Amino acid sequence: MRENELLALLEAVRSGEVTLEQAADCLKGELFEDLGYAKVDHHRAKRQGAAEVIFGEGKTPEQIDGIVRSMMDRGAANILITRLSQEKEAQFQVPHRYSVPARLAVANPVERPLTGAIAVVSAGTSDLPVCEEAALTAEALGSRVFRVYDAGVAGLHRLLAELETLERARCIIAVAGMEGALPSVVGGLVSCPVIAVPTSIGYGANLGGLAALLAMLNSCASGVSVVNIDNGFGAGFLAHRINQMKGLEES
Amino acid sequence: MRENELLALLEAVRSGEVTLEQAADCLKGELFEDLGYAKVDHHRAKRQGAAEVIFGEGKTPEQIDGIVRSMMDRGAANILITRLSQEKEAQFQVPHRYSVPARLAVANPVERPLTGAIAVVSAGTSDLPVCEEAALTAEALGSRVFRVYDAGVAGLHRLLAELETLERARCIIAVAGMEGALPSVVGGLVSCPVIAVPTSIGYGANLGGLAALLAMLNSCASGVSVVNIDNGFGAGFLAHRINQMKGLEES
Amino acid sequence: MRENELLALLEAVRSGEVTLEQAADCLKGELFEDLGYAKVDHHRAKRQGAAEVIFGEGKTPEQIDGIVRSMMDRGAANILITRLSQEKEAQFQVPHRYSVPARLAVANPVERPLTGAIAVVSAGTSDLPVCEEAALTAEALGSRVFRVYDAGVAGLHRLLAELETLERARCIIAVAGMEGALPSVVGGLVSCPVIAVPTSIGYGANLGGLAALLAMLNSCASGVSVVNIDNGFGAGFLAHRINQMKGLEES
Amino acid sequence: MRENELLALLEAVRSGEVTLEQAADCLKGELFEDLGYAKVDHHRAKRQGAAEVIFGEGKTPEQIDGIVRSMMDRGAANILITRLSQEKEAQFQVPHRYSVPARLAVANPVERPLTGAIAVVSAGTSDLPVCEEAALTAEALGSRVFRVYDAGVAGLHRLLAELETLERARCIIAVAGMEGALPSVVGGLVSCPVIAVPTSIGYGANLGGLAALLAMLNSCASGVSVVNIDNGFGAGFLAHRINQMKGLEES
Amino acid sequence: MRENELLALLEAVRSGEVTLEQAADCLKGELFEDLGYAKVDHHRAKRQGAAEVIFGEGKTPEQIDGIVRSMMDRGAANILITRLSQEKEAQFQVPHRYSVPARLAVANPVERPLTGAIAVVSAGTSDLPVCEEAALTAEALGSRVFRVYDAGVAGLHRLLAELETLERARCIIAVAGMEGALPSVVGGLVSCPVIAVPTSIGYGANLGGLAALLAMLNSCASGVSVVNIDNGFGAGFLAHRINQMKGLEES
Amino acid sequence: MRENELLALLEAVRSGEVTLEQAADCLKGELFEDLGYAKVDHHRAKRQGAAEVIFGEGKTPEQIDGIVRSMMDRGAANILITRLSQEKEAQFQVPHRYSVPARLAVANPVERPLTGAIAVVSAGTSDLPVCEEAALTAEALGSRVFRVYDAGVAGLHRLLAELETLERARCIIAVAGMEGALPSVVGGLVSCPVIAVPTSIGYGANLGGLAALLAMLNSCASGVSVVNIDNGFGAGFLAHRINQMKGLEES
Amino acid sequence: MRENELLALLEAVRSGEVTLEQAADCLKGELFEDLGYAKVDHHRAKRQGAAEVIFGEGKTPEQIDGIVRSMMDRGAANILITRLSQEKEAQFQVPHRYSVPARLAVANPVERPLTGAIAVVSAGTSDLPVCEEAALTAEALGSRVFRVYDAGVAGLHRLLAELETLERARCIIAVAGMEGALPSVVGGLVSCPVIAVPTSIGYGANLGGLAALLAMLNSCASGVSVVNIDNGFGAGFLAHRINQMKGLEES
Amino acid sequence: MRENELLALLEAVRSGEVTLEQAADCLKGELFEDLGYAKVDHHRAKRQGAAEVIFGEGKTPEQIDGIVRSMMDRGAANILITRLSQEKEAQFQVPHRYSVPARLAVANPVERPLTGAIAVVSAGTSDLPVCEEAALTAEALGSRVFRVYDAGVAGLHRLLAELETLERARCIIAVAGMEGALPSVVGGLVSCPVIAVPTSIGYGANLGGLAALLAMLNSCASGVSVVNIDNGFGAGFLAHRINQMKGLEES
Repeated sequence: MRENELLALLEAVRSGEVTLEQAADCLKGELFEDLGYAKVDHHRAKRQGAAEVIFGEGKTPEQIDGIVRSMMDRGAANILITRLSQEKEAQFQVPHRYSVPARLAVANPVERPLTGAIAVVSAGTSDLPVCEEAALTAEALGSRVFRVYDAGVAGLHRLLAELETLERARCIIAVAGMEGALPSVVGGLVSCPVIAVPTSIGYGANLGGLAALLAMLNSCASGVSVVNIDNGFGAGFLAHRINQMKGLEES
Repeated sequence: MRENELLALLEAVRSGEVTLEQAADCLKGELFEDLGYAKVDHHRAKRQGAAEVIFGEGKTPEQIDGIVRSMMDRGAANILITRLSQEKEAQFQVPHRYSVPARLAVANPVERPLTGAIAVVSAGTSDLPVCEEAALTAEALGSRVFRVYDAGVAGLHRLLAELETLERARCIIAVAGMEGALPSVVGGLVSCPVIAVPTSIGYGANLGGLAALLAMLNSCASGVSVVNIDNGFGAGFLAHRINQMKGLEES
Repeated sequence: MRENELLALLEAVRSGEVTLEQAADCLKGELFEDLGYAKVDHHRAKRQGAAEVIFGEGKTPEQIDGIVRSMMDRGAANILITRLSQEKEAQFQVPHRYSVPARLAVANPVERPLTGAIAVVSAGTSDLPVCEEAALTAEALGSRVFRVYDAGVAGLHRLLAELETLERARCIIAVAGMEGALPSVVGGLVSCPVIAVPTSIGYGANLGGLAALLAMLNSCASGVSVVNIDNGFGAGFLAHRINQMKGLEES
Repeated sequence: MRENELLALLEAVRSGEVTLEQAADCLKGELFEDLGYAKVDHHRAKRQGAAEVIFGEGKTPEQIDGIVRSMMDRGAANILITRLSQEKEAQFQVPHRYSVPARLAVANPVERPLTGAIAVVSAGTSDLPVCEEAALTAEALGSRVFRVYDAGVAGLHRLLAELETLERARCIIAVAGMEGALPSVVGGLVSCPVIAVPTSIGYGANLGGLAALLAMLNSCASGVSVVNIDNGFGAGFLAHRINQMKGLEES
Repeated sequence: MRENELLALLEAVRSGEVTLEQAADCLKGELFEDLGYAKVDHHRAKRQGAAEVIFGEGKTPEQIDGIVRSMMDRGAANILITRLSQEKEAQFQVPHRYSVPARLAVANPVERPLTGAIAVVSAGTSDLPVCEEAALTAEALGSRVFRVYDAGVAGLHRLLAELETLERARCIIAVAGMEGALPSVVGGLVSCPVIAVPTSIGYGANLGGLAALLAMLNSCASGVSVVNIDNGFGAGFLAHRINQMKGLEES
Repeated sequence: MRENELLALLEAVRSGEVTLEQAADCLKGELFEDLGYAKVDHHRAKRQGAAEVIFGEGKTPEQIDGIVRSMMDRGAANILITRLSQEKEAQFQVPHRYSVPARLAVANPVERPLTGAIAVVSAGTSDLPVCEEAALTAEALGSRVFRVYDAGVAGLHRLLAELETLERARCIIAVAGMEGALPSVVGGLVSCPVIAVPTSIGYGANLGGLAALLAMLNSCASGVSVVNIDNGFGAGFLAHRINQMKGLEES
Repeated sequence: MRENELLALLEAVRSGEVTLEQAADCLKGELFEDLGYAKVDHHRAKRQGAAEVIFGEGKTPEQIDGIVRSMMDRGAANILITRLSQEKEAQFQVPHRYSVPARLAVANPVERPLTGAIAVVSAGTSDLPVCEEAALTAEALGSRVFRVYDAGVAGLHRLLAELETLERARCIIAVAGMEGALPSVVGGLVSCPVIAVPTSIGYGANLGGLAALLAMLNSCASGVSVVNIDNGFGAGFLAHRINQMKGLEES
Repeated sequence: MRENELLALLEAVRSGEVTLEQAADCLKGELFEDLGYAKVDHHRAKRQGAAEVIFGEGKTPEQIDGIVRSMMDRGAANILITRLSQEKEAQFQVPHRYSVPARLAVANPVERPLTGAIAVVSAGTSDLPVCEEAALTAEALGSRVFRVYDAGVAGLHRLLAELETLERARCIIAVAGMEGALPSVVGGLVSCPVIAVPTSIGYGANLGGLAALLAMLNSCASGVSVVNIDNGFGAGFLAHRINQMKGLEES
């Protein structure tokens, strides 16, 4: 409920059209549904332009099912469930699409036109699951995605050969494990925002992805920001936001 | 040099208009100037829409002076020098503006109209130096900035009172030390990209800002990405990029 | 044995009522029972107002059984066994209640009236097991508990809608994984003691709950203290102590 | 503004006694004063029973002065300023008391009767500054404090000799650096809440207090919670809250 | 081969009794046997008073078998194999004793009188496997061991009741997980060397035993040294060395 | 494509022998093949003297198969696949050799003469898998390898007995877990480059090999450099490069 | 007060020789003196065979002076004050000896014969301050010390040349910074207890001595235990205890 | 003393030419000189082809002077002293050259021809001190050095423009702070050994150079090894060794 709606409600209170109790209920009821184990945030789509996203880890299949149905009852489509294991997915009965490598489900999927241009670039083939989580997230939200995989810095020509694609993108997601150097190199080549995603690919001093994370946070290239290790979803969501931005004159 | 320029050059090589050696010089000369201790990247403005930025730490005043003059010879204005101590600034003889708390200099400053809207929100008064580094960077690059300082989560009403300002911004920079909770709360309230900046304000288990950094990387709010601890410059630069984006139809 | 009891015993020694050896036995025997693998602390209930609590990890089912029976022989009821896996519970033959998500058993359970008011607030649904460990511990000890689950800071209205419940509590347990921001926000809203419990929910830079732990230790809100990661038991025990406090005049 | 005040205001809006704009101003104005560099939280005393506390680090003397005067204008007394260096204190012109070891100032100090009983116990003499920060905070807020210093576990009899004092306390603050064992031993002896404060006293593998912090978080004694390293203020504030609790029947 | 033996050999070289090649072989052959995957150190018993000890982790059953047999061929008895899983032990065909909790095997076991006095004290029942590794190691080497288990600092009277046993020991091994406070308390009570063994018992901020390790390294009690986490063997071996020391006059 | 090839191509463009498009294709096509999930770097052998090496972790058997076949189509032999689990190897149908402990496959193996001399020295038997990864890598690339296993510093004579072998090597790979002292001792004995490889063998404060890694990075011996924990491949590859170096006069 | 003294006191209570109050005073008074900022542990010498040692860091010169005088009043001599800066020492007026590099003072120094044999071995010259703290501590307590400095593993012959000295020692203190390899090599050569002392000498990945500390904790040599970084005092104290041990028959 | 020298000595012992005592003296005396605080390793030049290098930190000017003179007495020239502060250098009276940024002295400097080719490449201007330490070390030992400074990955063309220089080098030292990406990119371009040197340039999540160190250890490029943070000396020394290698046929 934005300011003008709130003012309208206050007006209605003043005029007696709605009672105090009705106003209170109205304010509460619109916002979320309380399932006991979860308070489903129905207000989020209005507030943030995208429905709540369900973090699949640590939830039972019953809980996930309950939350999704509560959202669908309110008309939500393309509901994202991240980090959903195949075991849980097998028990999930709501209509949905599922990506095995990305461990991502899209419940109540609805086709929509994809617009703009996001590039997802990866350093290696082993980073593919995180890339797909990012790409599928952005596509589910309505953005067009270019995939440029296995273009790590140990063979620069592979990346430079895709320079044209990178330059067409409005936002780039650069995914890398090990030393995490890719976002710095990409960041030095382009002029759009770059979202760096460290992955846990590697071993030893990789420290489960911390090495790549730290490298990316210290990137000497400007215009780069970072999300959590293996957080393809977060990168895809943010890239979509940036991709969909209106021009300065429009806003 | 973009693809079409390159093709033109190749054409000229074929037609014999330019010799092979001339072509090689042309390719090299345009790109950077080698001062021995530094290779000034003159190509960056063309490639990335903003001149090279000088990291002041670990450089002598003479080196900084040399790099700035090399850039000014090529016509660069509003040249940013970050992490410039007051001692070094006192020896710096090129015309410039300087902010003491932000330790930021803008050499060869030129007025330009500020457009769009970036909000810089801080959790506490002690975060002000990092905020100013972010705000002054974005302003030097041409973006308009709203400052909302000392609006931390221990007194939520102070933040909620500025909701309107937050909603007007095209990009928000959320700056916080200690537990770094501010970006998550801001991220849950708005629908534009949020750049989180952890600061080193705090003590003990703060670990020089690591606590805030880790918190921000784990933010449960979508649409949030993170830059290095105390990296006001990086946030300001990226926010400017996002703020200046063209609309989907324009690009 | 408190000071006056000790003085009485010394008196009896002086008067010859008890021999030196009897006094020594008396002092030792009352305090604990030595089972070889464990010294069951029978004195604790007298000293601390609650029987010893059994940490289930790293103990064999036989050891747990032995300790519980030793306590029951002394009349203990509502004996808590924490971190008890379902496999061990299946072998556990003493009468008890068991919570699967909380991995908590209450042996020799006895109904008692629940008094006062503790609120257990969680950031997400995935934090539920830790919350239940806290809530069931407090209830087993005799405190009344309000559950407010999935009220994280990314959707503040869900938390604010429960403000009344929070204000009625004499002590609040705030449970959160990921960035661990909830206790700071709760701490800024209420005037009772807040116990923060970080959980290991999250991934990557979450570092098994360390990110949330560090955030909570750095909370900018006053009146917040912290227990170990996933330590629902510790929070429930301490909250019960605070909840049961007598007023200043009574003590 | 609590619920009943809010309902009264809404009533007044309905009855036309106050205009919509007046209501909005009323809601905002009461809450805080915006000094640009700080939003002084005037609502906090009402909300939390104690005025805002000023974190002195990272603030200029002018900023501190401005914030304190804004609070005094609203009638605040006994305003705490923590981590205030002697240099800044020398420039501070508002009437105040100051403790050199604790680096704590109490501005606009007013005598008040001290009630209840908090014990501050330290492991060593070197922990004294943190102890004093805790003790002076609790006293400034109105609680009575017993000081038991240098009673570390390497000479247990020194602690046991003070058992009577510990048993009289309604809340105990246990302060220790190095291995941080004191709170566990204290926690095993008493039945009131114990707040553990790790200090940075030590060297090498002490890691600036992290060793003590981790030890305290892992305490095998029940009823212990932890605050940040060297955070005497936080412990004193929380202990005061616990000390001032009403009895179950009163609340 | 000690100095006088070496001189004798050199003498024999000079006198022509042994050829240069014989001398070289003699020097090499006596020292170790090369099995390809292992160089069995037959010289160690002479050099250090105890045969080589086999670290069972990361070795195949065949490798362990080969090493043990090589040692037995040279007459070694009571050969220790540490960290030997039950799976590997099942395939191990040399005569031996095995402790399941300690994962310790003693191959070619020979009875010998146990002398002196070592006390193994543990904080909790869950630390028992590490304690047993220490105790069985010391016993296999020939030392007498007193076991005092579950005497943690949260119930000090359990430890104080065993003070007499502690005072009879020539060396004490203090084993604790969680906050690792036990060695500091023990170290403050006795005048013999104390070897602290941190265990990985605990969770969360325990960090796999690091919390206890750091605490022990920072012990405020004098006379305490530390071995690796869960390293019962190392503690038992060192305690045996100390226990078997000759008096000042004898040496 | 090196400089002279590039100049030749430019000449051909100028003379009209090749069209612009042909030149572009030529430049791109030679460099890599894009399989979608991987861009196989066919240029690497020319650029670096060895074909691309495949990191087996995180890739599906199908992906590995595809990459290997793409390389074989271009004539590559002795293709290394590291960190290949036995499960994946069982599905791998290209002709290859496989080492179980090293988890290393050599696809399309071709015999070639082994030249020079590399010594692989290990501290313990448990380090054997990492040693073999190093040794087999160097052999697959064409270097001769001496294996000196289980020569750790706790029995120095075992190492000193092999001094002659060490002195014959042109490059030494020193492999150690636990405290990682071996490379320092080796580095102090020889005058050729020493590559230190920390292994994850150990437990507790070993931190998965970090202890050995840090020790090696701090080596007081000159001439020592370090690769990642358990990175036998990296050490073998680099040792081969050093071993194959031409003399100063030849290069 | 040991058991037999305690029994005697109880006897006296029974017989009426001493009153209950006298007994209580007796028990308390003997144990420590309370100076407010410190509880001087007069009982320690009796309990542990050595007077309390004063940690100089974090104490004011006045506090140190007060504690020392309290101990001297009870007849203590050779009182150790560790980590005493030269500034504080300059203000210290009690008769004492002081070592600048070791920052160690011995107050009220009294000559005594030195017995037994402790060897202090260092890896480098830069470790000398820590070595001297260890050596001077052991000497102040009454042990004879051999100094073997700068015998690090990068030049093994320097260490081996001192083998005879090492073999004569009853206990060895091995001091090293950087990679901390010395104790492992020493531990492999001798049969007496080895106390490893990591120092903070080094830089970068040395992490203030953590690298050496971790290496020592993971030592593959048996018979090695570890104290805190730079803790020369702790090593010297423990070595003295071991050095002074009675033989098995005597005890 | 190598094997054949040793055999000669043994022959002389057999023939009676030298007595046993003479042989012993000969073996000891040749190896090092004992100055008390240091054992100067005169044997190192023979053993390792380069004189001992003096680590300047933690040594007094007198100690450094003594060690250098002891070496010069034996004829050593070009003696390296690393990490020598300007204050100490001012007191240093032996003839020497000194570099202020590199904090490196070369005592008793002697000109010698420089051979081969080492490239020192840096990411930024601020890395210059570490680069110079590496370059000056290699030059003092006799290697020719190419300097390529400020060629970081955020402006790849600056690096690619120097490709020819990189290809001429027999060994490359790649120096970088911040994210440490340079060695991976360089490693992907060349076929000679690459030594990566992380620097402490950066801030925040740079963790004093740890971020760059970890990145380099995880490099996806083959042929890269790593030395300690800021260890220009170590890189220069090792690069010299590699640069001076003989060809396969020569050795």
